Amino acid sequence: MKPFETVLAELSDDLVLRDRDVIGRFTTDFRRKFSGDSPALLRPRTTEDVARIVSLCGQHKVALVPVGGNTGYCGGSTPDKSGEQLIISLERMNNVRELDVDNLSVTVEAGCILSNIQDLAEQEQLLFPLSLGSQQSCQIGGNISTNAGGVSALRYGVTRDLVLGLEAVLPDGSILSNLSPLRKDNRGYALHQLLIGAEGSLGIVTAASLRLFLAPIRRVTAFVAINDITDLMPLLAKAQQYTGEAMSSFEYVSRASLDLLLDKKNGLRPPLSGKDQHYILMEAVTSSPVLNLNEMIECLFEDCISDGIVVDGTIATSERQRRDLWHLRENIPEGEVLHGGSVKHDVSVRVSDMARFVQLGTALVERYGHGARLSVYGHVGDGNVHFNVLSPEGVNCSAFLDLIATEVSPRIYDLVAKMDGSFSAEYGLGQAKLDLQRTYGDPTKRRLMSSLKALIDPAGTLTPGKVVEQASYEI
Amino acid sequence: MKPFETVLAELSDDLVLRDRDVIGRFTTDFRRKFSGDSPALLRPRTTEDVARIVSLCGQHKVALVPVGGNTGYCGGSTPDKSGEQLIISLERMNNVRELDVDNLSVTVEAGCILSNIQDLAEQEQLLFPLSLGSQQSCQIGGNISTNAGGVSALRYGVTRDLVLGLEAVLPDGSILSNLSPLRKDNRGYALHQLLIGAEGSLGIVTAASLRLFLAPIRRVTAFVAINDITDLMPLLAKAQQYTGEAMSSFEYVSRASLDLLLDKKNGLRPPLSGKDQHYILMEAVTSSPVLNLNEMIECLFEDCISDGIVVDGTIATSERQRRDLWHLRENIPEGEVLHGGSVKHDVSVRVSDMARFVQLGTALVERYGHGARLSVYGHVGDGNVHFNVLSPEGVNCSAFLDLIATEVSPRIYDLVAKMDGSFSAEYGLGQAKLDLQRTYGDPTKRRLMSSLKALIDPAGTLTPGKVVEQASYEI
Repeated sequence: MKPFETVLAELSDDLVLRDRDVIGRFTTDFRRKFSGDSPALLRPRTTEDVARIVSLCGQHKVALVPVGGNTGYCGGSTPDKSGEQLIISLERMNNVRELDVDNLSVTVEAGCILSNIQDLAEQEQLLFPLSLGSQQSCQIGGNISTNAGGVSALRYGVTRDLVLGLEAVLPDGSILSNLSPLRKDNRGYALHQLLIGAEGSLGIVTAASLRLFLAPIRRVTAFVAINDITDLMPLLAKAQQYTGEAMSSFEYVSRASLDLLLDKKNGLRPPLSGKDQHYILMEAVTSSPVLNLNEMIECLFEDCISDGIVVDGTIATSERQRRDLWHLRENIPEGEVLHGGSVKHDVSVRVSDMARFVQLGTALVERYGHGARLSVYGHVGDGNVHFNVLSPEGVNCSAFLDLIATEVSPRIYDLVAKMDGSFSAEYGLGQAKLDLQRTYGDPTKRRLMSSLKALIDPAGTLTPGKVVEQASYEI
Repeated sequence: MKPFETVLAELSDDLVLRDRDVIGRFTTDFRRKFSGDSPALLRPRTTEDVARIVSLCGQHKVALVPVGGNTGYCGGSTPDKSGEQLIISLERMNNVRELDVDNLSVTVEAGCILSNIQDLAEQEQLLFPLSLGSQQSCQIGGNISTNAGGVSALRYGVTRDLVLGLEAVLPDGSILSNLSPLRKDNRGYALHQLLIGAEGSLGIVTAASLRLFLAPIRRVTAFVAINDITDLMPLLAKAQQYTGEAMSSFEYVSRASLDLLLDKKNGLRPPLSGKDQHYILMEAVTSSPVLNLNEMIECLFEDCISDGIVVDGTIATSERQRRDLWHLRENIPEGEVLHGGSVKHDVSVRVSDMARFVQLGTALVERYGHGARLSVYGHVGDGNVHFNVLSPEGVNCSAFLDLIATEVSPRIYDLVAKMDGSFSAEYGLGQAKLDLQRTYGDPTKRRLMSSLKALIDPAGTLTPGKVVEQASYEI
């Protein structure tokens, strides 16, 4: 009997699902870059179930791959092709354990869908600010394990900043439990920080206590054209100043990304009539009934128009208009898919280097890209841009993108490294970026990561072959 | 030759200081609760110096105790009595390596005094928001190693939230270097999070990149009396709402703390004439030239007075008045010292449990405290209160405080544990709170902390006997 069969035999039937169709939802990643196989999907109902599964896998040296909503971009939750790795999904652990309105906190299990947590908060006139394209299907356990970013990080931070407490099952089956939603706690090492962003390789997050905020009661959303990419920074600085740092989103959309979308999706209208090259979608929110956001934005625009930074713009005057603006921004990735895909570069540099990076990166693609198109957009207020390269119209996408990955991507990553930036701002490493970590990662960090993995998961059964270079594992 | 002599002999004279007076500044802790001895103070000028010192100590199994401004409350930087532990101070590593105004970041060496960093930011119309009583003498390396909190955490977070990048020397002498001031970076494990708050036991922080914010150009500071301790929460909620979360400080001052101070310090005047029991010092700040903070605060007070939450109050109308209000708040610890000292309990609970904790804690002291006085004050907006117990007038302080520590403290900590709170909200563990960690700490966390310490510092030379329970160390 194969070791994984021994594990499955020891688990109650209720926890084990062998339905090939269901398993098939998890054996290929969201972007269809990685595929594998698995004999069974394990679906625990409780933290104790998770502990038992993890213990058994450790004991029998069976690889266990945790999966959330399978919306990641780096194959972090796709099993390998051996057909012997088990998948574990916490989708049935989707209880809200506690909502403490006065403490502005909610304690949820890892299988909760992100948008359900947002909705729950909204019902109490509160806000859970984590917001990203896949929010209707991604799970908070996955968000935590990948330290998800999204469109509100400028004001509210990334997932790490939103986690007050954590419960996780460690590879030896023990439960690390510190769910108390405290704002301050200096009792020794910040172990839960190590699990945030570890993509399931050091333990499986089973529940978390999250920070909530007061719900915005006023919101102003604007879409503006800037004169030049170098106007990004001055606009951001002024926007932060005028709004008193109430700016929650500051998203860049290149003309190229917008055109791609308008070409491919019917029924979408350009928000501005001109042919400007660089746009910013910005949003400021407030919970205050006496803060006049519109006045702030008007002062900001007056200032920026007279400076020549902003050359055109529109302010949403209804929720419908606001949604339309966000709809454009959020559909850019789909525009790329409809075009035939892209080679994505999820990079971050200093906010002060953002424009220079876009300029230099664009020059690289122009020089070495064989006529490639660009789609550049993203969270420039955080110094994070999605710098994506697409095939020219009428060219075989798949072969072309392979060429780009080989000839252009290394140059872009070299540029990022030279600018002291990150080759993975928000997507994590998964299995897709282990080679980048080998090339660009700090050797001391890589060595310490491997040591930590070996210490905490000595059998190497938790999601092997991802995130961290393991000295060797027998699985 | 003793091993420490071997280490000292291998270091250049410039790095070694044997002056007994200078060493004496570090052999007793700030609160005079712990004392020890050391043969020499090591004063590196560079990260490489630190690496060499750490390596040599590891090699010869000589204990090394990092010290910052020696302002900690838990004896975390005091050597033991053996006279064989070396002290290392980074006071000569106080360079500003880079200030990037557009990126809102500054990269400083660990020996920089906190207030110098604040001043540097202010010169550029920026803000480094970390602010605490000892800011004129504490060093940023110590702030990071203890994850310091302070009076602005409500809006700007604790030190952990302000660190963008870190450089540290690990116990094996290798340098972990990731100083790039990025807002987003998901390249594997968040190792620097592990060093923040580790009190020097896993590595010595040598430099850090810190987040800056726009400097406030308007500020409103108010001191109000609330009707009852249970009005804390509703006032905080309304204050956050009206100011759109621009509230940066929300500090509680009990009548007892205020009286203690007015009794002991001449020239201080009570800000309000009544005899109310509970006060809040609150401050909101904004960088916006169009945000009317005064209007917000007036609306807030109108609402709270009509609700009966606020019974009296004053708003500072000049910088002088503002400073006087803060002066009162900041002098409370000195009031306690002048009284003869206190048994401090630096606890946190949920913000929603804050009032209940103060009520139940006060009842415990009334019942078991042999007539003790209380001084309760602190960062209640973060759920963090300093719940300090003092001797009655005319009683021998030292003996009485010992009695309190034995008979009352355990009951207070039991209460905190029952409320799922923390027995160390911002002070850390040092050597003072290792026993509390043994009693109340999560066993899984304690075990993992010890394993991490053994992995990263196998010789156990970095600040032994503090923060973490070491299985055994030979030093």
